[in-house]
Amino acid sequence: MIGGIEADAVIDAPRLHALMAAFQPHGGTPDGGMHRLTLSAEDGVARDHLAAWCKEQGLSLTVDCMGNMMALLEWAGPDAPVVMTGSHLDSQPRGGRFDGAYGVLAACEAVEAVRKHVQAAGKTPLCNLAIVNWTNEEGARYQPSLLGSAVYTGQMTAEDALARRDGEGIAVRDALRAIGYDGAGEFPKPDAYLELHVECASVLERHGERFGVITRHWGAVKYRLAFIGKQTHTGPTPMADRQDALLAAAHLISALGTFPGHASGTLHTSVGRLEVYPNSPNVVPGEAVLFIELRSADQSVLDWAEAEMLAAADRAAADVRVSKEIRFIDRRNVGFFDENLIALATEVAEDLGLPTRHLDTIAAHDGICMIPVCPSLVFNVPSVGGICHHPSEYTAPEDIELGAEILARMLLRLCEDGIGLVKGAA
Amino acid sequence: MIGGIEADAVIDAPRLHALMAAFQPHGGTPDGGMHRLTLSAEDGVARDHLAAWCKEQGLSLTVDCMGNMMALLEWAGPDAPVVMTGSHLDSQPRGGRFDGAYGVLAACEAVEAVRKHVQAAGKTPLCNLAIVNWTNEEGARYQPSLLGSAVYTGQMTAEDALARRDGEGIAVRDALRAIGYDGAGEFPKPDAYLELHVECASVLERHGERFGVITRHWGAVKYRLAFIGKQTHTGPTPMADRQDALLAAAHLISALGTFPGHASGTLHTSVGRLEVYPNSPNVVPGEAVLFIELRSADQSVLDWAEAEMLAAADRAAADVRVSKEIRFIDRRNVGFFDENLIALATEVAEDLGLPTRHLDTIAAHDGICMIPVCPSLVFNVPSVGGICHHPSEYTAPEDIELGAEILARMLLRLCEDGIGLVKGAA
Repeated sequence: MIGGIEADAVIDAPRLHALMAAFQPHGGTPDGGMHRLTLSAEDGVARDHLAAWCKEQGLSLTVDCMGNMMALLEWAGPDAPVVMTGSHLDSQPRGGRFDGAYGVLAACEAVEAVRKHVQAAGKTPLCNLAIVNWTNEEGARYQPSLLGSAVYTGQMTAEDALARRDGEGIAVRDALRAIGYDGAGEFPKPDAYLELHVECASVLERHGERFGVITRHWGAVKYRLAFIGKQTHTGPTPMADRQDALLAAAHLISALGTFPGHASGTLHTSVGRLEVYPNSPNVVPGEAVLFIELRSADQSVLDWAEAEMLAAADRAAADVRVSKEIRFIDRRNVGFFDENLIALATEVAEDLGLPTRHLDTIAAHDGICMIPVCPSLVFNVPSVGGICHHPSEYTAPEDIELGAEILARMLLRLCEDGIGLVKGAA
Repeated sequence: MIGGIEADAVIDAPRLHALMAAFQPHGGTPDGGMHRLTLSAEDGVARDHLAAWCKEQGLSLTVDCMGNMMALLEWAGPDAPVVMTGSHLDSQPRGGRFDGAYGVLAACEAVEAVRKHVQAAGKTPLCNLAIVNWTNEEGARYQPSLLGSAVYTGQMTAEDALARRDGEGIAVRDALRAIGYDGAGEFPKPDAYLELHVECASVLERHGERFGVITRHWGAVKYRLAFIGKQTHTGPTPMADRQDALLAAAHLISALGTFPGHASGTLHTSVGRLEVYPNSPNVVPGEAVLFIELRSADQSVLDWAEAEMLAAADRAAADVRVSKEIRFIDRRNVGFFDENLIALATEVAEDLGLPTRHLDTIAAHDGICMIPVCPSLVFNVPSVGGICHHPSEYTAPEDIELGAEILARMLLRLCEDGIGLVKGAA
């Protein structure tokens, strides 16, 4: 029995649940949620725990300049292909306990289980295995998200990433040093990448299914856009003389809320963060900084929304007599995951008697950064109600087991049959 | 010469400028502004400086339970009437250097000058004089504003005021204790109150005049209003499932911006502070708290605006499927300052060859709290461009001198001719 299914388990389910429970105190909140901002003290403790686990297992740990942690099981020889799997231990502020941590800890269990399984069978593995914990997947404390995997895959320079500052002005570089994860190691690019994650949507649940592979990721355009007005007294300043940066922000936020109505379900817009200065009840705001996100499955819709957003920002600025400044833009085009890995996942699920649903992901995942580097796949088990980034995020124990079992079986197939399964002549 | 006018000065202008310069380092910013939040470390240093000055002058200092500082020159005997003058040493975050501090330090100079003047003339004073520094006039760190004077005048209980918390959860009670101003003294109510302040508007400047008395204060209605939605991922959550508290806030802020257009100059609206939770770029905001102010010279306009605001808040909540919560309401009706003090100020200004302009105040001043207690007056010298609550707030040295000179001459008249000038049979 595994994950409620009659089958011989590769993984050790109680051991997986115990590992997840053991990491929960590192930032866990009394409501069962998780508050483990990247590079915080809690994150430091969780990382130390992971490092200790790797040491116990005899894996060699590399910490690179971004604090990405990569642990290698080099049991197939130094020249063998490497299959990497993992996710991120950081969470949103007062977020959920599964988003990210599950992918890392299931990777730990899967690697340990596969090793025992192969060794017990007396077989010779054809691939080395690596576990990864990426830095700042969430993009909550530092922007952009996927900071660690973006640098690892060459989509961003380390210099740029290390200089990013949080709301209190602390640079990534200093935050890494503070918890002792300012590494200097380098880890070669793997030959395949697998990431297990709870579904941040409710498609599986709605279909009464338990397993999905992500075939496509939506594109995203993220802006940090500032309106700059004039800081004056909210009392005496005549309305005609005001240049209220927050009022311009309100106009733009309201306008953005109307965009999805013109794009029949293919466009998501949001302003998740708004910084108001000086943010005092009786001072007309002199500055308002909006963190805008536009996401779409359709590149042309995304391009249209970006142009409309900029036009709306200009109108808002003109209406309120403030100026506009674009401080940061991050664009990620629509893209696709690896077909061979999708086929492998489908076969493994079939062995367990499960259909495999094809999903889009709208949320970012480190696996997206890995697409240009090697065959990459992110796959999902259900999250109740599709809730994500909230303490009530929940995945049932059977589904937790199921996802880890599928991951383990995919790793096992790659170790037994070789990387040729998913990568031509490797 | 005083304040650029040919006249015998009562005050010592260089001594006043020196005193103001000596207080500037206590929270002064490199751009000439002031960042001295109430009960902050900087405020503590400024208070200690004021206490030391009072001791040097032989004044007896009372610190009450709100940390209000009241220094008495009891030179007319224990039963003589008391004329109180002062303002507040706290400032807005990155605010101006004159708003508040000028009224306290000009009071110091005026009291010192009047004492020397009366003693040199060998006269017997008919009134005692008191200098006051009110706690939390600004309402920036703690709401509501006028916290110290509201408790002193019985418009708010000390228990309520001391329990107010700042954005970091620190109660007034604890902030007072931290800087050693959790006093237990009681200071009897004075017989008249005078407050000198820079004009937080540009009426004097527009008329090319230098002196104004405030005859009327606008009414104000302040709400702390929260929208409560649901914290979810900005990516995958379908737009139709979102309950975005910030979007509701944006709708209401935009709506509020249209109200003054229906009230021909008699209504000011603002949202100066907006708290967004969790305020992470990729989390749909679960809560947004607006600090709304409505101000009007006309009580019926104010009542209309409050009703409209509540209706607009309900519409915004319904549109976005979030709920609404009113967390705090503060109402101050339209009111009027003392006619006898206005007449006295007008005479004194006339002696200096200056006209006296009648002004409204829209901003709150501690003098408003004093209206029910004793004859009260707030009077103004110009602030360049009407700028207030901003580092560029500026009043010319001649106007600084002029205001203090008028204050000193008013105190002198009251000391020489008695409180009967402004208060029937005292």
